[in-house]
Amino acid sequence: MNQPNSVADTISIDQIYQAAVRIGGHAHRTPVVTNRTFNQLSGLQVFFKCENLQRTGSFKFRGACNAVAMLSAAQLTHGVVTHSSGNHAAAIACAARQFGARATVVMPAGSNAVKKAAVIRYGGKVVECENNEAARIATADKVVRETGANLIPPFDDARIIAGQGTAALELLDEVPDLDIVMAPVGGGGLIAGTCIAARAQKPGIRIFAAEPEGANDAWQSFQKQERVPLQSANTVADGLRTSLGLLNWPIIQAGVEDIVTVSDVEIVAAMRQFWMLTKLIIEPSSAVPVAALQKPPFDGMDQSTKIGIILSGGNVDPDHLPW
Amino acid sequence: MNQPNSVADTISIDQIYQAAVRIGGHAHRTPVVTNRTFNQLSGLQVFFKCENLQRTGSFKFRGACNAVAMLSAAQLTHGVVTHSSGNHAAAIACAARQFGARATVVMPAGSNAVKKAAVIRYGGKVVECENNEAARIATADKVVRETGANLIPPFDDARIIAGQGTAALELLDEVPDLDIVMAPVGGGGLIAGTCIAARAQKPGIRIFAAEPEGANDAWQSFQKQERVPLQSANTVADGLRTSLGLLNWPIIQAGVEDIVTVSDVEIVAAMRQFWMLTKLIIEPSSAVPVAALQKPPFDGMDQSTKIGIILSGGNVDPDHLPW
Repeated sequence: MNQPNSVADTISIDQIYQAAVRIGGHAHRTPVVTNRTFNQLSGLQVFFKCENLQRTGSFKFRGACNAVAMLSAAQLTHGVVTHSSGNHAAAIACAARQFGARATVVMPAGSNAVKKAAVIRYGGKVVECENNEAARIATADKVVRETGANLIPPFDDARIIAGQGTAALELLDEVPDLDIVMAPVGGGGLIAGTCIAARAQKPGIRIFAAEPEGANDAWQSFQKQERVPLQSANTVADGLRTSLGLLNWPIIQAGVEDIVTVSDVEIVAAMRQFWMLTKLIIEPSSAVPVAALQKPPFDGMDQSTKIGIILSGGNVDPDHLPW
Repeated sequence: MNQPNSVADTISIDQIYQAAVRIGGHAHRTPVVTNRTFNQLSGLQVFFKCENLQRTGSFKFRGACNAVAMLSAAQLTHGVVTHSSGNHAAAIACAARQFGARATVVMPAGSNAVKKAAVIRYGGKVVECENNEAARIATADKVVRETGANLIPPFDDARIIAGQGTAALELLDEVPDLDIVMAPVGGGGLIAGTCIAARAQKPGIRIFAAEPEGANDAWQSFQKQERVPLQSANTVADGLRTSLGLLNWPIIQAGVEDIVTVSDVEIVAAMRQFWMLTKLIIEPSSAVPVAALQKPPFDGMDQSTKIGIILSGGNVDPDHLPW
C-alpha cells in the first residue's frame, strides 16, 4: 500500500460519490432516527445516523466494501487480508464474501470470542498473532507474501476514508438543514470521511469530533496542531483505542472545528440512557459523541440547533456490559 | 365500564380503522425490519413490526391513546385512571397528557422503580396499593368515586383491543403478502386486535399466538376450548403474567390457529440472539414469538414462508437483564 501523507494527496468528494455508487447494492442506507425525550433532555434537536444498524453492525462495512469493490477481478482471486480485533475484521470478511474473495483476518490471540465468531460467520479465516502492533503487521505481511492477498488497512487508507464518508452523505441528504455534524474519532476514518462529505454538501456546516479522555491523541494533536501518536489507551470505548492515521490527521485538522473529550463515566451514562430511551443498542464508541452533547459548546446551544450524530456501531458483548 | 362478554359484542374491523385515524397524529407508525442473518438461521422470512419503538416503548400506547381519544371533553376534565405495574401505566400517562387529561395510575407498592419513573415523567400520578388484584381494583374504584376519573383497563376493553389492532393493520399494509402473523398473548389485547385486523385485511392469513409456558392460561383455554383463568405465573416475560380477558378470549378462540408455548430458557436465548443480530432492544415478552419460531409448526416450514411478528415492547431494566 502507498500511504500518502500530504494534504495534497487527500480524498476528494468525488471519491466519496464514487464510493456511494460502488457500495450501493451492498451496504444498507441506514435510518436516521430522532427521539422526543432525548431532545427534551438535551435541549437540542438531534438526528442519529444509525450505523449500528449497518451490515456487520458498524460503519466499517462501508469502507471495507468500497476497498474490496475497487480490486480488479485478478486481485480478488488472491483474496484480502487485514489486521483488526474489532469491527473492521467482520466488515472485511463480509465485504470479501460479497465479491467472492477469501478474507484472512489477523487477530491478537485472546481477542474477544464474539468478534472472532463474527469473522468466521461471514466466511473469513482468523489467523492469530501476539498482541502487539509489530506482530500484527508482520503476520499480515506474511499472509500477503505467501498468498498475494491484498492488504486493506482499517482507517489509514483513501479507499476506506471515502467509503466511511458515505454515511455523512446520506445523513445530509436526509436532513439537509443540519447546523452541526459530529462523529467519534479513533483512527480517524469515519471523521475524515465525514469532514470531506459534510463540507462538500454544506460548506457552512460545523463539524466536531468526539473522543474518549482515555485515548485523546486526536485532542492532543489538535491542541499542538501536529499529529501526536497515542501512547496508551485506557477507555471503555474499545473501537477508539487507536492512533490517528497519517492520512487522516491533516483532513481532520483542516475539517473539524474542535475535538470534544468525554470521560468513561460520561460515555457509559450516555450509552445506558440512549438504550433506555431509543431501544437501540449502541456500543461505547457510539456513545462518545452522545455524551459530548452535554459538554461545551453543545450544552449552551439554542434549542433550535440541529445536530447530526453518526452512531458508529452496535456490537456489544451482552455478558460484559459496562455497568 | 361495561365489559361485553359474548362474541356478538366483539370488535369490528371498522372500530380498528377508526382507531387508526384517531391515534394517527399521536402514535408512531413503527418500522417493519428484517434481518438477513436471522432469516438464514431460522430458515424463514421474518418481518418484525417494531412496537418496541412505539411511544412509551410498547404497543400499549395504541390502545391507551384510542381509549383516551374516545372520551368527551367533559369526561377528559375528570381525568383517567388505571391499574397496571407495566407498560399500560406509562401508555396511559402519556396518552392522557396528549389530550390534556390528568392520569392516575394505581401500582402495587414495590413496583419497578423504572416503570414508576416513566409514569411520572409522562406527567402521571402514581397511587400505591397492596400487591394483589383485589387491592388494585378497590384502589382504582376509589379514585373513580372520588374524582370521577374514567377507568381505562389494560386489555379487557373494546377501545383497547381496537387500538392494539392498528399494529397488525400497519404491518399488513407494509407487507401484504404475509402468510402468517404472530403476536404474544398475556391479557389478550394485542392478539385479539391482531386477529380482527389481520383476518379482515387478508382472510386466508394464518394467525398464531405465542405464550410463556410459565403463564400458559391461553394455551390451556385453547386446549379446553373454554377460558381457564391463570392460577399462577412464573415467567421472565413480565408483560404476560395476566389472565386472558373475558372479551379477549372468544376473539382469540375464533381467530388463532394455535397457541405455541415456549420456556423461559428459550425466551431468554431468543431475546439475546435478537439483540445481537438486530441491535434492537426487545423485552422478554417480545421474545416469546421470536422463540416460538424454533418450535412446531414453524421449524419445518418452507424457506419462502413469510411471517410477521409483532414485537410488543422494549422496556427492560439494564441492571436486571435475564442472563
